Amino acid sequence: MKKRIKRLFNIINKDIDAILVKNSSRTHVDLSFYYITGLKGVFEQGAAIAFPNGDVHIIASQLEACNIRKKDVNVHVFKSKKELNDITKNVLKSSKKVGINSEDLLHKDYLEIKKILPKARLIDVSKGLLEARMKKDEKEIKEIKKACRIASKVADELPDILHENITELDMVGRIEHLMRLKGAEDRAFETIVAFGKNSALPHHVSGKTKLKKGNFALFDFGAMVNRYLSDITRTFVYGKASKLQKEMYETVKKAQEIGFDTLKEGSTFKEVHLAVKSYIDKTKFKGKFIHGTGHTLGLAVHDGGRLNEGYKEILEENMVLTVEPGVYLPKIGGVRIEDDVLVKKGKIEILTNAKRELIEI
Amino acid sequence: MKKRIKRLFNIINKDIDAILVKNSSRTHVDLSFYYITGLKGVFEQGAAIAFPNGDVHIIASQLEACNIRKKDVNVHVFKSKKELNDITKNVLKSSKKVGINSEDLLHKDYLEIKKILPKARLIDVSKGLLEARMKKDEKEIKEIKKACRIASKVADELPDILHENITELDMVGRIEHLMRLKGAEDRAFETIVAFGKNSALPHHVSGKTKLKKGNFALFDFGAMVNRYLSDITRTFVYGKASKLQKEMYETVKKAQEIGFDTLKEGSTFKEVHLAVKSYIDKTKFKGKFIHGTGHTLGLAVHDGGRLNEGYKEILEENMVLTVEPGVYLPKIGGVRIEDDVLVKKGKIEILTNAKRELIEI
Repeated sequence: MKKRIKRLFNIINKDIDAILVKNSSRTHVDLSFYYITGLKGVFEQGAAIAFPNGDVHIIASQLEACNIRKKDVNVHVFKSKKELNDITKNVLKSSKKVGINSEDLLHKDYLEIKKILPKARLIDVSKGLLEARMKKDEKEIKEIKKACRIASKVADELPDILHENITELDMVGRIEHLMRLKGAEDRAFETIVAFGKNSALPHHVSGKTKLKKGNFALFDFGAMVNRYLSDITRTFVYGKASKLQKEMYETVKKAQEIGFDTLKEGSTFKEVHLAVKSYIDKTKFKGKFIHGTGHTLGLAVHDGGRLNEGYKEILEENMVLTVEPGVYLPKIGGVRIEDDVLVKKGKIEILTNAKRELIEI
Repeated sequence: MKKRIKRLFNIINKDIDAILVKNSSRTHVDLSFYYITGLKGVFEQGAAIAFPNGDVHIIASQLEACNIRKKDVNVHVFKSKKELNDITKNVLKSSKKVGINSEDLLHKDYLEIKKILPKARLIDVSKGLLEARMKKDEKEIKEIKKACRIASKVADELPDILHENITELDMVGRIEHLMRLKGAEDRAFETIVAFGKNSALPHHVSGKTKLKKGNFALFDFGAMVNRYLSDITRTFVYGKASKLQKEMYETVKKAQEIGFDTLKEGSTFKEVHLAVKSYIDKTKFKGKFIHGTGHTLGLAVHDGGRLNEGYKEILEENMVLTVEPGVYLPKIGGVRIEDDVLVKKGKIEILTNAKRELIEI
């Protein structure tokens, strides 16, 4: 972990004395807290302070400090807000320039920090934090791979579980339960299950819709392993696929392959998206791919970069990204296929290995 | 909803022209967004603007706007950050004093709002928002009651599901699945399952621990219905309870009854806690009740008030609170019993009705 912290300060490359990240009540936690500390759990109201020499201090409530079993960190326990502030002040007493993460810090906590460190200069290091988090280290890749294996196994089991009239919410519960049985500590995000015409809405909120013959059944979910995430989507046809359904599926599958081919060290984020999008726009489904091609993935579902227009950044080794084209026909249905990919020297590794062929159930 | 917005402006009671609440990426959403709009779903990056006359404007991304089926709101769709900012600016063009919620607003969004509304005065209305949200209206109470019914039904089914060697994470998955089958759209928060000595940690992170004869089995979970939450805890003994286990259980049960008796319109928040705590401190478990007695509950698990020392506020009609004393013996185990209560004129209504007696399985 010391290596991670030193690299972080190198990337930020500003003359700062410390970095302070602060959680509020759930769900307002700063995921960089887990990056800096290597902890899992929640740590409401907690804070982590990192120094250029790699030292890390954790300030945790009495209820949560007992979950810390790491030896290479300094743990401080607070019982009240006053104690929390006093400890923060004390740990940072020699720090004149303190990095904060404005991307995840609540405005009220910013004001609080200003108050307890009146002499310190607060410097936004959110860009550096995201940049550091985008290129994964060995430990992070190991966790993400585990999370991808779990999600892939569950994806492959889905066709056997589906039956007529099962509801979307029933499937959400089963998927999240199955991921835990296979070693996930939690879901990566709210699982999306969309049947029939609901699958035409990429951000569908799963409900009581029942599965019927001829429906698309779309599943978008991921596992959490030591706070690291996977993110996979599979779309099946419940029954025999119609000609249109087959065309939609094959278009998306081919578009994803184009994504895999374009995504490599040295390409820009937007290049990948434009290649995928322009392929779909040459088919009869022109204009029906209505979101970005993917996003970087790690502690957060969207942890910094996007394969989309406007993103001129360069793909680098050890980045992890989703590749998830889709085709959506309002009131009819949609197909999305999503996999997670690790950028390596000169090639990519696809981390989610569930079957990608059209499955008719 | 117009009534709710007008009441909100009354409570805030500052001379403001509008309230702006803004979501960031998940999980940084402002739960007041759902209070103001009455919507469920996520609405990443979205914003809601309310005016004193009760009018509400929602700014949502293309992907999420299609989930809005309400007729009494103005919906604006944005395709880019620039559009989002332009719409915000336009809707607020005549507003000189704009209320913001610093408790849930990210610091970067605060800076962004300052930039797009350079002439407006931004006034923190977080206190008023929390105060409004603490006293529930009829619609909110209806949702919370539904969420309580679902959690209670699941709690009553747990003894039949438990078997030797089942893991904590398996039970987490089953509980969250069962809640969905009974009508929940989601869990209220990360379900806690703690077996044996893990039950001595109030914030235990559930893992692969297996249930053994003689263990306490503690379950802390809740359901989400239209974004409103319930929160219940039950502790069982797997096998025949020892004398110590029985004493712990009966102490907590009696402490909770004292909580129910003290909790009423006109009492202060801390009074309830002190009554419960001083009862436990008179037993052999002195000092083993290590957290507050409860908290208000609504859109957030902790939505403003706490039954704890330092909270001098007065309990009022239509507040919903948890009452959750516990006794924790490190390395042995813990008992917590938690129910949700609605404060009514001159009495309380217990909304979670799962069996409260000691169950030996």
